[in-house]
Amino acid sequence: MPRDEQLPRNEDGIAAVLGLLRQRLGDRFQTGEAVRQQHGHTTTWLPTQAPDGVAFPRSTDEVSQIVATCAEHRVPVVAFGTGTSLEGHVNAPAGGICIDFREMKRIVAVHPEDLDVVIQPGVTRTELNTHLRDMGLFFPIDPGADASLGGMAATRASGTNAVRYGTMKDNVIALEAVMADGTVIRTASRARKTSAGYDLTRLLVGSEGTLGLITELTLRLHGIPEAMSSATCSFPTVDAACEAVIATIQMGVPVARIELLDQMAVRACNAYSHLDLPETPLLLLEFHGSAAGVAEQAETFGEVAADAGGTGFAWTASPEERTRLWQARHDFYWAGLALRPGAKGLSTDVCVPISRLAECVGAAQDKAREMDLLSCIVGHVGDGNFHVMLLVDPDVAADVRKADDYTAWLAELAISMDGTCTGEHGIGQGKRKYLRKERGAAVDVMGAVKAALDPDGILNPGKILPQTPETPPRP
Amino acid sequence: MPRDEQLPRNEDGIAAVLGLLRQRLGDRFQTGEAVRQQHGHTTTWLPTQAPDGVAFPRSTDEVSQIVATCAEHRVPVVAFGTGTSLEGHVNAPAGGICIDFREMKRIVAVHPEDLDVVIQPGVTRTELNTHLRDMGLFFPIDPGADASLGGMAATRASGTNAVRYGTMKDNVIALEAVMADGTVIRTASRARKTSAGYDLTRLLVGSEGTLGLITELTLRLHGIPEAMSSATCSFPTVDAACEAVIATIQMGVPVARIELLDQMAVRACNAYSHLDLPETPLLLLEFHGSAAGVAEQAETFGEVAADAGGTGFAWTASPEERTRLWQARHDFYWAGLALRPGAKGLSTDVCVPISRLAECVGAAQDKAREMDLLSCIVGHVGDGNFHVMLLVDPDVAADVRKADDYTAWLAELAISMDGTCTGEHGIGQGKRKYLRKERGAAVDVMGAVKAALDPDGILNPGKILPQTPETPPRP
Repeated sequence: MPRDEQLPRNEDGIAAVLGLLRQRLGDRFQTGEAVRQQHGHTTTWLPTQAPDGVAFPRSTDEVSQIVATCAEHRVPVVAFGTGTSLEGHVNAPAGGICIDFREMKRIVAVHPEDLDVVIQPGVTRTELNTHLRDMGLFFPIDPGADASLGGMAATRASGTNAVRYGTMKDNVIALEAVMADGTVIRTASRARKTSAGYDLTRLLVGSEGTLGLITELTLRLHGIPEAMSSATCSFPTVDAACEAVIATIQMGVPVARIELLDQMAVRACNAYSHLDLPETPLLLLEFHGSAAGVAEQAETFGEVAADAGGTGFAWTASPEERTRLWQARHDFYWAGLALRPGAKGLSTDVCVPISRLAECVGAAQDKAREMDLLSCIVGHVGDGNFHVMLLVDPDVAADVRKADDYTAWLAELAISMDGTCTGEHGIGQGKRKYLRKERGAAVDVMGAVKAALDPDGILNPGKILPQTPETPPRP
Repeated sequence: MPRDEQLPRNEDGIAAVLGLLRQRLGDRFQTGEAVRQQHGHTTTWLPTQAPDGVAFPRSTDEVSQIVATCAEHRVPVVAFGTGTSLEGHVNAPAGGICIDFREMKRIVAVHPEDLDVVIQPGVTRTELNTHLRDMGLFFPIDPGADASLGGMAATRASGTNAVRYGTMKDNVIALEAVMADGTVIRTASRARKTSAGYDLTRLLVGSEGTLGLITELTLRLHGIPEAMSSATCSFPTVDAACEAVIATIQMGVPVARIELLDQMAVRACNAYSHLDLPETPLLLLEFHGSAAGVAEQAETFGEVAADAGGTGFAWTASPEERTRLWQARHDFYWAGLALRPGAKGLSTDVCVPISRLAECVGAAQDKAREMDLLSCIVGHVGDGNFHVMLLVDPDVAADVRKADDYTAWLAELAISMDGTCTGEHGIGQGKRKYLRKERGAAVDVMGAVKAALDPDGILNPGKILPQTPETPPRP
């Protein structure tokens, strides 16, 4: 199922770099087949395109030297965190060197008074939160997977609690990055705000390793809330659920999470996680605040939900019950897969203005039925972002084509509703074909920025930009 | 007091463009001395550098045509909102055309369900909030001046309630912009979040008109809180006040505003606004939330403040009393000026990690005393941002030099504390000399982006980048 072509390779440059890095890094540079395959592999259905070698640097200096060497020989460089991306971000369609950040896992400094932390990019979000727990602090962004924070910044990740805490763009204070020629820059100070020049922090966040490699992050932290509670509420229709979401947010209730599961998604979770939720559209919520605040939020939501036709509203502050519910939500991917054993899951990622959400979700359900695609839907509905998980047999070409057609149809529908083809997964390889439809002439501005900062196109070629040079870096 | 040199002018190009725009825009293109002077003038002590003509376009198309004409003749273009910037942003050191957005004041669409609004750039923040009030919505960013929202986005403005609501970078969802060749782009959709390519929205926010001209903004709105309350608390020292701020924020109290006034600032406000606040360091706060939530927040803060040595804590939910207090804070600039009749006010704008704030404010006070500079300090202390207002006789050269030296000293101190020379005023002309010290090699990345997007350097020349071509655009 070849979906993205190989790009031409600069064989001489690659050979030269392999020799140099082997010499310089010893065991921390590997070219074995298994390691290479593993580093082109992601939790995606896109086929693996392995790099030619994988480096495991321990410091920014080493990253800078590796990139400078690659730059000199015009060899591609692909950054790798934990390989949990969904759009082929770590594939190496022109070969080259993968830089795996797993040996850059240091928590450099925690500043509790400033509510920030400085870390190396290989630290994962659960590693960070485990480290912070005793200080009463946490980092809120939670994309589900235990991704590396460097990778989360590079793909502008978000997840279930973006409605309250924002996405990676809102929670990165500053970055250190190695640019295409090996130069090391710092995008900002640790000050909470600045008007000092262009916002390079947010230019790098979401740039998917195509403009620079993130070698250190300063992240914004939050105090662990005094109290948390979870709630569930069933709705007769997706429309009714969306109506409740809109009213809740309009009233300024600071919900931490507000997730929609459609009927089929609830069924999958019930089966997989041994729950007995009513099999109708469901909202799953979490509230953070003081004990009194959390109770007030839950009650306000309960009233709003009842007005919208919600039934069976229940909330709990019990940590066990909360964990059980949210674990089920996090296991949704596996629950979905279990609906059709042997199938692979393809997840769409559109995001629309919340006023269009019910219409978009409804159309997505109808279309899947019409195309006879088995699917279920979960959504970060506070943001207008939802995922249709299509269960597809990767060995049946017609099935794959149908899923592809469906994804394209849904991307175009979301774009026509003033939305985006990707709320949080990124463009990578998989969504390049939609970018121009979505952003028009702005894509040329992106291209100009890319050309200015990476003139030889060595940083993660074949990602984001439809017009990224399809020819290899010239030797 | 010439502080920024004139840049060389492209006389032939300017003459050609003056003729073309006069023909095309008629009365909406003016070249009279008074209008020109007024458009190079800002609430700053930097000397006026007037443009050669001022255009008053009514549509994005007209802006695009004006910029295309200027591009063809390599003539500078300077955007103008309300002229309230503090760092010479609207000066035209190489002459050229000012584009005044005062005839682009349309509120294009309010989307209450999506909590967003689409506006033209000339709308000011009070105009917007007046329009929104009946819908129960508001736009929170409040830099004090009634600035245009296009200008606020262009300078990444913030103000008193950034601690809760963030800055312009956090509240702009999407922009329409005219780029250096006249091309019109849209940086994003109305979706709440996206991972679709580079974040051009935030690349333009804070770019001070040097990368593109903002012609439409989609802004994030908030529901007017059910309840608001204000509080004041006096402290024996700035240190004690900062300690209370840190503890309050660590506890997760969602304060909407938390402002520090030093002893001299309180004195100035007492005199100017007929208040009788104790003349010691003072915190002035505002809380937003439900009636119960607001009371809880105020009480929590009261306890924290008492622990830190605060006295005279008082809070009120009375709108009159709230308005009186915040009006005094907003009138601070005029109150400060009244301390030394005839003087001009020069405001510094450093921002440091909050853990270094007390030390930085203390050093700033000591240094001013040591240099015999009359000054008072207000700070958005939740962000670590504070302003020293220096009262300087602009006609006394030694005075001006001293103020300059002080500003440079403070900028360097803040940078040495991992802070920034400008928290919210922008670089403009006034702070260009500090940018490289603050951001090092990152300035070259900014320069590369500028060169890629505005190769002839026609967009607001002489701003932000120290190395912006000092030669004029070539005819």
